Amino acid sequence: MADAAKSVAESGGMTSNPFPGRMADFRLRFPEWSVDSFLFFNMNNIRYLTGFSGSEGILYVGPRGQAHLLVDGRYTTQARKETSGLELVHMTDSVDSITILLAHENASVVGFEDTSLNVQLYRRIKGKNKRLKFKPLSGEIDLLRALKDEHEVACIRKAAVIAADALESVFPIIRAGVSERDIALELEYRMRKGGADKVAFDTIVASGPRGALPHARAGARKFKPGDAVVIDYGAVYKGYHSDETCTFFIDRVESDLKEVYGLVKEAHDRAIAAVAVGRSCRDIDLTARDLIDHKGWGRHFTHGTGHGVGLDIHEAPRISYKSEQLLEAGMVLTIEPGVYLPGKWGIRIEDTIWVTRGKTEVLTKVPKELTILG
Amino acid sequence: MADAAKSVAESGGMTSNPFPGRMADFRLRFPEWSVDSFLFFNMNNIRYLTGFSGSEGILYVGPRGQAHLLVDGRYTTQARKETSGLELVHMTDSVDSITILLAHENASVVGFEDTSLNVQLYRRIKGKNKRLKFKPLSGEIDLLRALKDEHEVACIRKAAVIAADALESVFPIIRAGVSERDIALELEYRMRKGGADKVAFDTIVASGPRGALPHARAGARKFKPGDAVVIDYGAVYKGYHSDETCTFFIDRVESDLKEVYGLVKEAHDRAIAAVAVGRSCRDIDLTARDLIDHKGWGRHFTHGTGHGVGLDIHEAPRISYKSEQLLEAGMVLTIEPGVYLPGKWGIRIEDTIWVTRGKTEVLTKVPKELTILG
Repeated sequence: MADAAKSVAESGGMTSNPFPGRMADFRLRFPEWSVDSFLFFNMNNIRYLTGFSGSEGILYVGPRGQAHLLVDGRYTTQARKETSGLELVHMTDSVDSITILLAHENASVVGFEDTSLNVQLYRRIKGKNKRLKFKPLSGEIDLLRALKDEHEVACIRKAAVIAADALESVFPIIRAGVSERDIALELEYRMRKGGADKVAFDTIVASGPRGALPHARAGARKFKPGDAVVIDYGAVYKGYHSDETCTFFIDRVESDLKEVYGLVKEAHDRAIAAVAVGRSCRDIDLTARDLIDHKGWGRHFTHGTGHGVGLDIHEAPRISYKSEQLLEAGMVLTIEPGVYLPGKWGIRIEDTIWVTRGKTEVLTKVPKELTILG
Repeated sequence: MADAAKSVAESGGMTSNPFPGRMADFRLRFPEWSVDSFLFFNMNNIRYLTGFSGSEGILYVGPRGQAHLLVDGRYTTQARKETSGLELVHMTDSVDSITILLAHENASVVGFEDTSLNVQLYRRIKGKNKRLKFKPLSGEIDLLRALKDEHEVACIRKAAVIAADALESVFPIIRAGVSERDIALELEYRMRKGGADKVAFDTIVASGPRGALPHARAGARKFKPGDAVVIDYGAVYKGYHSDETCTFFIDRVESDLKEVYGLVKEAHDRAIAAVAVGRSCRDIDLTARDLIDHKGWGRHFTHGTGHGVGLDIHEAPRISYKSEQLLEAGMVLTIEPGVYLPGKWGIRIEDTIWVTRGKTEVLTKVPKELTILG
């Protein structure tokens, strides 16, 4: 997969119709997986391979290479408009439609995404297709979308610009007395006003002690002087997500926080500098982790250093010391070390970057130097 | 389930801690299902039974009645704060944690939600627990949350008030030249400003020919004089959703549209009037459908008349001619007939209602008389 997809990523980008190439690359893997066809239920994988952006549908790629997109009446018009070169199947009952199609195409061993199919639907499909073999392949197709072409990177870059413009426009209202929720709401409104399809996820605005909860959303807490405020946010443009985290200080910064901010910033900078084609995800994670460890904050850096980002906000690869995955040209990743002192504060700094054979491009736009607002 | 849950709905509402009663009612069903315990993966079912509102976790109700909530480190504090009377299990690997728990509790036949569990996780759990039987019971627990108590209804009512206030505040900007997306964005912003946890779903603003696509979201199209504009929207308050659709006209209404609006309104009114404890969902659907059919628009009413609403925007029961389910006191439903002329226009009118032994209460607040804006 990697090599095939790389050819797309490096073929000059801005392809007007990238879908036939992606589909061909995908089908090259069938022999290695010992399948003759594949059933897709994950809407982002379907979008990646066909361009269909609806929220329901099933894609079947048959033994003769024909792709069939199964949609119900709500999506027929949209599917016809967004796709080409595939057969549109009007679906009433999904199991019946799949069964007819598998028989007609003479399928034998059908790969599927076992993390995107629920047990009920799986059992119903298996029950009606007893002579077929269904082969779970989620692990194998995890990297399907990992290498981005230039058009995809352009979408993420645009999402990042929309997001940064919105955040910078909110700077004047980030001050003591304003609530996390107020800032999140204004920020999300401005990202959408600025052209985002939608926001990438519920914006995190976590101040003071709430900053120590890496999953905190925005709550009613009002900023106080001296707070560290973690803002983790992103925009979606043409389906592609940006992901960025800034930690600001309100009115002033205490010396201990200033020191930790400097440490996290250095871990972030070093990890980005370490990114290169052929290095492992483990290497990148440990570049940040070892530094934070060395300064005694290791047990307060409680998550991985980053993750792939694209049509999903979290996708392959994971930037973790547990992953031996090698970086390849075309990957888009976050680098986001953080230190969290429970009950006290949290500091995280995150950028989204593009791995190339040349210089790593930082796609997210807000400067990460220590910033005091208020 | 039905009778047991009814006792909650009719026990005087506003219970300060409804969770032990819900859990007890749920466990009463075990003999009928021939299970000794149950694994939950659906976060709304978990929230309903325990109060835990996090976005990841697993609930196991064991043979001796003990409930165990499995959460990872991110959710320990939140789970401790939101729940009582259950054992919190710190989970690192979900399959390992489940396996240890099932062995420790001496489980034998474990019910689970087969529509909320993916094939991969199911296979991993089964593979490590070979002596156990796992019994798919999504169909059986579909009605778990169907009967709402007064506290739940109060939340939906509050969500509906927030939503209506926001929509009415947007009336002055609904006019020719304004885009669907602008209205959706303003409406969502004002719902959240007005106290919504979040919006119930991506707001539908579909004007002119786009109104004929029942699933259309808000697009770039600008309103024109004579347009019918379908606005389908809702707010979430303490986890509970409101759901309401208004169809407005811009500047004027053509006589054919006025006639169809009157028809849809009558179908909507009659269906609501038909709602009563003991009537079937089929009856309610056909009350609206037969009228629309009789006037020659039957094939343009392309969806069911409504659905249950609560912690999910769509939940049991479905108001469909295919459903023999009887209405019970405590159900909260939408009634939303519509007529769609492809390429031309769409008209839908929707309210969320509460089924009681007395008068049906309409929880949504915006008047549904024909309204011209601009």
